[in-house]
Amino acid sequence: MAPWMLDLLVLPLFYSLLLLQYSPSTFAKFQPRYFPSSITHPKSQSLHTNNKLYKTKYFTQILDHFNYNPQSYQTFQQRYLVNDTFWGGPKINAPIFVYTGNEGNIEWFAQNTGFMYDIAPEFKALLVFIEHRYYGKSIPYEGNKKKAYKNSKTLGYLSSTQALADYATLIVDLKNNLTAIDSPVIVFGGSYGGMLAAWFRLKYPHVAIGALSSSSPILQFENITSQYSFNNIITQDFRSESENCYKVIKGSWKEIEETARTRRGLELLRKSFHICKNYISGDYLEGWLSTAFIYTAMTDYPTPSNFLAPMPAYPIKQMCKAIDSLKLGNNTFAKLYHAANIYYNYTGDVSCFDFLDDSDPHDLGGWQWQACTEMVMPTSGNNKESIFPASTYSFEGHAQYCEEAYSVKSRPTWITTEFGGHDITRVLKRFGSNIIFFNGLRDPWSGGGVLKSISKSIIAIVEKEGAHHVDLRFSTNEDPEWLRDVRNREISIMKSWISEYYQNIVDSDAH
Amino acid sequence: MAPWMLDLLVLPLFYSLLLLQYSPSTFAKFQPRYFPSSITHPKSQSLHTNNKLYKTKYFTQILDHFNYNPQSYQTFQQRYLVNDTFWGGPKINAPIFVYTGNEGNIEWFAQNTGFMYDIAPEFKALLVFIEHRYYGKSIPYEGNKKKAYKNSKTLGYLSSTQALADYATLIVDLKNNLTAIDSPVIVFGGSYGGMLAAWFRLKYPHVAIGALSSSSPILQFENITSQYSFNNIITQDFRSESENCYKVIKGSWKEIEETARTRRGLELLRKSFHICKNYISGDYLEGWLSTAFIYTAMTDYPTPSNFLAPMPAYPIKQMCKAIDSLKLGNNTFAKLYHAANIYYNYTGDVSCFDFLDDSDPHDLGGWQWQACTEMVMPTSGNNKESIFPASTYSFEGHAQYCEEAYSVKSRPTWITTEFGGHDITRVLKRFGSNIIFFNGLRDPWSGGGVLKSISKSIIAIVEKEGAHHVDLRFSTNEDPEWLRDVRNREISIMKSWISEYYQNIVDSDAH
Repeated sequence: MAPWMLDLLVLPLFYSLLLLQYSPSTFAKFQPRYFPSSITHPKSQSLHTNNKLYKTKYFTQILDHFNYNPQSYQTFQQRYLVNDTFWGGPKINAPIFVYTGNEGNIEWFAQNTGFMYDIAPEFKALLVFIEHRYYGKSIPYEGNKKKAYKNSKTLGYLSSTQALADYATLIVDLKNNLTAIDSPVIVFGGSYGGMLAAWFRLKYPHVAIGALSSSSPILQFENITSQYSFNNIITQDFRSESENCYKVIKGSWKEIEETARTRRGLELLRKSFHICKNYISGDYLEGWLSTAFIYTAMTDYPTPSNFLAPMPAYPIKQMCKAIDSLKLGNNTFAKLYHAANIYYNYTGDVSCFDFLDDSDPHDLGGWQWQACTEMVMPTSGNNKESIFPASTYSFEGHAQYCEEAYSVKSRPTWITTEFGGHDITRVLKRFGSNIIFFNGLRDPWSGGGVLKSISKSIIAIVEKEGAHHVDLRFSTNEDPEWLRDVRNREISIMKSWISEYYQNIVDSDAH
Repeated sequence: MAPWMLDLLVLPLFYSLLLLQYSPSTFAKFQPRYFPSSITHPKSQSLHTNNKLYKTKYFTQILDHFNYNPQSYQTFQQRYLVNDTFWGGPKINAPIFVYTGNEGNIEWFAQNTGFMYDIAPEFKALLVFIEHRYYGKSIPYEGNKKKAYKNSKTLGYLSSTQALADYATLIVDLKNNLTAIDSPVIVFGGSYGGMLAAWFRLKYPHVAIGALSSSSPILQFENITSQYSFNNIITQDFRSESENCYKVIKGSWKEIEETARTRRGLELLRKSFHICKNYISGDYLEGWLSTAFIYTAMTDYPTPSNFLAPMPAYPIKQMCKAIDSLKLGNNTFAKLYHAANIYYNYTGDVSCFDFLDDSDPHDLGGWQWQACTEMVMPTSGNNKESIFPASTYSFEGHAQYCEEAYSVKSRPTWITTEFGGHDITRVLKRFGSNIIFFNGLRDPWSGGGVLKSISKSIIAIVEKEGAHHVDLRFSTNEDPEWLRDVRNREISIMKSWISEYYQNIVDSDAH
């Protein structure tokens, strides 16, 4: 098993390029993160801070909602973004749409969740985007990130349950302040944010009347979903594009490893892949390449995007085009280089790729802690057919890494104990309501998603051509019809929630 | 306002006799708890430790489920009681009935929740009673109660959310160990335990398929239920028995206060009420009497009981008989003494009542902490008609007491943020299922209960003649018909949950 596959499981759910190079024996040596540097992708990290999308606000949040130790009363400033341009106001109980922030800077999510802006006028909705604790500017310990991230004692309050309680507390307070107590709240989220949205509706039905949970792998825990599912879907994404493309990539790992072992092999690889002179190894190169394939599969959108990096429409098709190109003959490295360029260097600005760059433009660093404590999601298995080398997920390896990195013990069964997941259809068949689970089947995370409707109002929308929360993007004139259809279905379902809610108010006032 | 009314709100939900004597000015002086001493009620505290009702087991529980600080990983031994006499076993997926323990020694609840034993054979159910953390023998810090209760740093982990997570963790583990993963779990509880049962079903639907939540005042928070409701019901309980009885009690407070202020008045009161010589004051006496009326109203059962103290059937009727008795003429103190005796000394063993006794035979002491942190339940208001002197609930007084007693800040809006309560009918109309809320209208806590069915499967059973979780008691041949009817309805509803659950298993296996 290639050591760089071992800890794909601590990848931030989708957009971080953080890829842990780890095997027990090499732990001390390798703790780099593969991140597109500011040199690599100047465009992907510049947030529009002077935009007109939202106003920035802060809420004083308590450090620990679930115990009453003196330190639990410490507070921090939680950032949230508000847009009230389209809001109908409290008099007509106009709705509030809340984005339950993920593991990163909330501005980035607000700017990439255009769907909420697109539909706000129609719903006369207030838009609120709440930043997840320990990310962006919502840092405990007086905003001192270095202190907050110092060790398990300060990082300990970074957890999903605390984040959900933050959202509940903030929303209740906000509604009181706006005297909008009867305005219905719908929560939105994609990926980890989508998990939070679904869990929020399940745990706080008195705060949110419904949730649009997009591409949320809430079943990617324990053995509910196969550990091979994630990489199988990536494999299928490439293979369905071109059998040759799949074969070239699948065959490349051995070639890289063999080359890396030869004299001057690393120099050859450096040159072939335009790697900067400060550092290279075969493992790092493999990690770097696999990162490109994984994230391209996740963001295989039908229109150009600039979420993780500037990318063309249907980037897998573009990658395979490069690999299948006859011009490059049998030169595997050249083919792979051109494919990787689609992801890492679509603008063509990068002169060399820096393996030692560990910048984190979207403030995603906390996910590694979350993956080490509760977000234990086995996705790194590769079967014989996988586009990556065969491997098996090892919880022990994961646990050992976390012990060494943070002196923290993983709690691998906590998420299913707290939020469920096993037999979800049976459990939620007559419990809960008003959740939309969207999944696109080209998204490797879709294997861990809810793919079948559970009840009349817990509805799965599945789109064969879709990638990771494609539905939440700003709409464009180039959007394919299936994407318009998905969004129209979502809109119509949310409308039904809201009108049912209004009807209930009328009914209860009449009593 | 009588100072002894101020903090009725920190009464353990019903059975503790802890009554805080507090007004800001007298704080330093008075922190006693009025508890029937071992002298007063030798019978009420002797638990049948050699009984055949259950076997005692322990589970290693984590100190904090919601954060990942190093200290959260500390463990403690959580006690639970098991009876498998009637269990049909995992092969037939026979059900598991779990009592979600309240604020006290779990043996006491197991011995007083006969309903579960009565119906276990019919359901072939395994019985499990889980002790709430910080009570009985389930004490963190190596079982060192003195240490666990030392201050807010060690007591901080005593909270309802942690307790619910304990129950979820224990049940999931127990089912795995019994290879009974598909056995349906129903949770039972009365009073605070009933609140926990209802909340458990709402928060952990993947662990319990339903809840019997008896006499659970989940709406006695913030302003959802009137602060006057509690004492209004007590007033009504006595008044409906006899207008004279109500008037005598209502008039007595002034008489006691005036007497206490006269020379030799306290001596007269001591003699009249058989108070021991170590301590007496007018305030304490009033607290002592009101405690008797409050708890008698709660446990106004149709058959003799021995839960808080040995009591006759319909004890309010007995109290009013004493008060209305012509033998005692106009001697208010003699009347009240005889009435109080029904509660404090039905067996006639007590020679004098010790106001300084602060023994705690049922290990209920932690409730004061819970009331100070999250269980802020305004019940102490008294309107003009109240059997107690007129008064208004003061959150400020409560908060100040808690600040001084524990240096802890109350979080009065937390429970409704975490568990809801406002507009519960609207919120749960199409969310959640399988909860029975039982309330008896003679129970002062019933005002804060769910008294109307919310949906087809969130059902309120309301019994005019019922007292505090009367349905959960062992059945006897003397039980009135309404009580049999209540239990039969509960049984039939729970049967419907279980058969629906089994049908779902069959359906999902067929897929």
